[in-house]
Amino acid sequence: MSRPAPLSGFPEWLPAERLVELEVLDTVRRVFELHGFSSLETRAVEPLDQLLRKGEIDKEVYVLRRLQADESEGDAGLGLHFDLTVPFARYVLQNAGHLEFPFRRYQVQKVWRGERPQEGRFREFTQADIDIVGRDTLAFHHEVEVALVMAEVFRALPCPPAVILVNNRKLAEGFFLGLGATDAGAALRAIDKLDKIGPEKVAALLESDAGLSADAARTCLRLAAIRSADTSFVEQVRALGVEHPLLDEGLAELGAVVGAAHERMPGALVADLKIARGLDYYTGTVYETQLVGYESFGSVCSGGRYDALASDGRTTYPGVGISLGVTRLLAVLVGRGLVAASRSVPTCVLVAVTDEESRRASEGVAAALRSRGISTEVAPKADRFGKQIRYADRRGIPYVWFPDAEGGHAVKDIRSGDQVAADPGSWRPPQEDLAPVVRLISPENEEITP
Amino acid sequence: MSRPAPLSGFPEWLPAERLVELEVLDTVRRVFELHGFSSLETRAVEPLDQLLRKGEIDKEVYVLRRLQADESEGDAGLGLHFDLTVPFARYVLQNAGHLEFPFRRYQVQKVWRGERPQEGRFREFTQADIDIVGRDTLAFHHEVEVALVMAEVFRALPCPPAVILVNNRKLAEGFFLGLGATDAGAALRAIDKLDKIGPEKVAALLESDAGLSADAARTCLRLAAIRSADTSFVEQVRALGVEHPLLDEGLAELGAVVGAAHERMPGALVADLKIARGLDYYTGTVYETQLVGYESFGSVCSGGRYDALASDGRTTYPGVGISLGVTRLLAVLVGRGLVAASRSVPTCVLVAVTDEESRRASEGVAAALRSRGISTEVAPKADRFGKQIRYADRRGIPYVWFPDAEGGHAVKDIRSGDQVAADPGSWRPPQEDLAPVVRLISPENEEITP
Repeated sequence: MSRPAPLSGFPEWLPAERLVELEVLDTVRRVFELHGFSSLETRAVEPLDQLLRKGEIDKEVYVLRRLQADESEGDAGLGLHFDLTVPFARYVLQNAGHLEFPFRRYQVQKVWRGERPQEGRFREFTQADIDIVGRDTLAFHHEVEVALVMAEVFRALPCPPAVILVNNRKLAEGFFLGLGATDAGAALRAIDKLDKIGPEKVAALLESDAGLSADAARTCLRLAAIRSADTSFVEQVRALGVEHPLLDEGLAELGAVVGAAHERMPGALVADLKIARGLDYYTGTVYETQLVGYESFGSVCSGGRYDALASDGRTTYPGVGISLGVTRLLAVLVGRGLVAASRSVPTCVLVAVTDEESRRASEGVAAALRSRGISTEVAPKADRFGKQIRYADRRGIPYVWFPDAEGGHAVKDIRSGDQVAADPGSWRPPQEDLAPVVRLISPENEEITP
Repeated sequence: MSRPAPLSGFPEWLPAERLVELEVLDTVRRVFELHGFSSLETRAVEPLDQLLRKGEIDKEVYVLRRLQADESEGDAGLGLHFDLTVPFARYVLQNAGHLEFPFRRYQVQKVWRGERPQEGRFREFTQADIDIVGRDTLAFHHEVEVALVMAEVFRALPCPPAVILVNNRKLAEGFFLGLGATDAGAALRAIDKLDKIGPEKVAALLESDAGLSADAARTCLRLAAIRSADTSFVEQVRALGVEHPLLDEGLAELGAVVGAAHERMPGALVADLKIARGLDYYTGTVYETQLVGYESFGSVCSGGRYDALASDGRTTYPGVGISLGVTRLLAVLVGRGLVAASRSVPTCVLVAVTDEESRRASEGVAAALRSRGISTEVAPKADRFGKQIRYADRRGIPYVWFPDAEGGHAVKDIRSGDQVAADPGSWRPPQEDLAPVVRLISPENEEITP
């Protein structure tokens, strides 16, 4: 076949870029497990009727058909999941008898959306979710917890500073109701459009769709402009003079989230009262996350509290969850060249081969190194040593091992040219050379290198 | 919704079972990286015309359709990949200019096959592949290498002993041609059916389809019965008196593979001359793997050499690869109860909460423990301590931490009941309690425990 072209919306990485992705995936896993979240995976497909329960995104589902399906068989009725929340809710209901509640799980998987191909829209991408799900009840403090776990992830990642923006549905809805809104949901959806359509059109929507007066609409815009990294937002909201019991509850909850975060990880969370999250099922705290300096990429980590993640009619499972958009994050880190791996292969040592007859001896050296956790390859061909060194150099392999050179083994750091005698049974590379290191490229470095 | 039922062919694991899967995935990754294989992932979809190039499995492809596709748009022409070889071959062609050859990659991903639902047939399953791909040429020694890497994986896994069965396409085809076969491929396909339809029907096929005499067919069956863990099979084949240059080449190659393996990992590889592998594109060594005692589950790890993994018309990319069937392996390990995790959660310590007012102090203890890599949860509710201990016990969490108990911190091993004073800034659990341990359950233990 001729050279294939990439498929729009289905990103793939080269080996060195994949190392950045692995660093992200390893970091999220490490932090999630440190906090006692259990790993889960769900199947890629769900029955179509389950996927279509949330009407607003049905247009994005990929439906499956077996190529050789009988005519009589029709559609298999299966679609690819478009998020990890719907499958997880189904999993909880299906396995509730085998799970302990509150149940803490993380899930890192690909999801698919049948978007029309266009810039910046992925049709396949990876999400990393944590959720805590209770049976019948779920304590409020978990709404603080999941945000701080994600803040810890961002601090551990090689990435620009991240700010998790939080708001509270009760606060917003209570505020709208206190102003006399006839449809608080419509007001929420209007505010959600603020960045896209601007304040004037949002004010018009607030009047036309949410039943608010022109004056009240302006007050909503003033609410949406409030942002603070500490609990000072509470006084700012109070100063707007709106009263409603739901507003009181939401203010108390958001104050608790922001206050705890301010105490435990100052700067990680910011109350931002225009955060709305389009989805209807959130009922408490909602989260979005911006990378400082890369706000235009949109939220890289979003979620919230839902009073009914799942329900089987008798039992309701409230939950709180937050989802890191791994692929979107990589589109920033890799796409903008912010992060790089120190080499493109895991290999730390290339063992040279003097001639094909002595390949077995080189393999013995490699086995000895690997037994101490040192990633090692044997040169594929007994070329001149210069050519074998270039093989290592092109891949970024830092060390070339020469078996039996001048009556003994020797290992060369091909970056410095330093060569020392070494014993395959005891030699160790410096810790920083053992595995590829993924590092944020500092802006200063960026300016120096072309 | 009411309680959902599992979907046939789409296996999912409970948290403790998923820990077994993670152990398998972590082990393959560790061994693959020790041998210098780079991680790659490819998108889940390929253009349908690429997926259908190998005619014999077209019936198993899942085709995608966007739910809201315009009538005019027709099919998107995309299907889910059914293996990792076809996408990898496409990736190599697409990115050849950015890759260094020979290129060593591993790839661990789900694949999908639109099988009719039936016992033991998965429609979604995970494979773990390694391949080494050259440009224009690829040295033979890589055919030894990939098998030994997989043998190392099996030795590192908590699983029953595995035997990698090897044969060589040149050996088999040369043998058939030396006997006067008119269609060596048909002979190969007939031998491939030996376990399914028995020797008599295979002999009939060898005569009817491969153009062999009744006598020659019997000789083929004698070839297929040869099996040896060392190179003694060479003499046994020679004793059958068949001559062909391709047979000589194949015997030399298989002798080299089995000889090297016998020297480096005795017992890991066995020459088994009935191994055929149905797929047409193999051209040298072929592999299948049996778990000793669980042969009826079929091969858990298969592959081979292909002289043209990919070609763009000007350049050909020969390769050798081997693929571990992770899901099939888990169906044995988990399905037969051979392997178990020491607990169902990553959590090592549950920090108790005396009352909701002091939750912050418990969170401080948890943060101190996590900073030293100890997976820690804080109790979700300030219940009586007995209830908090039961919360830990139900999950298999070995330690419960009591902040400020009797004027200082104390930690209790809830398995033994031992409680000691401890400092959150320095206490460490024994290494074996730090993370869940996945162990093969020995047959002796199985007999003792009901």
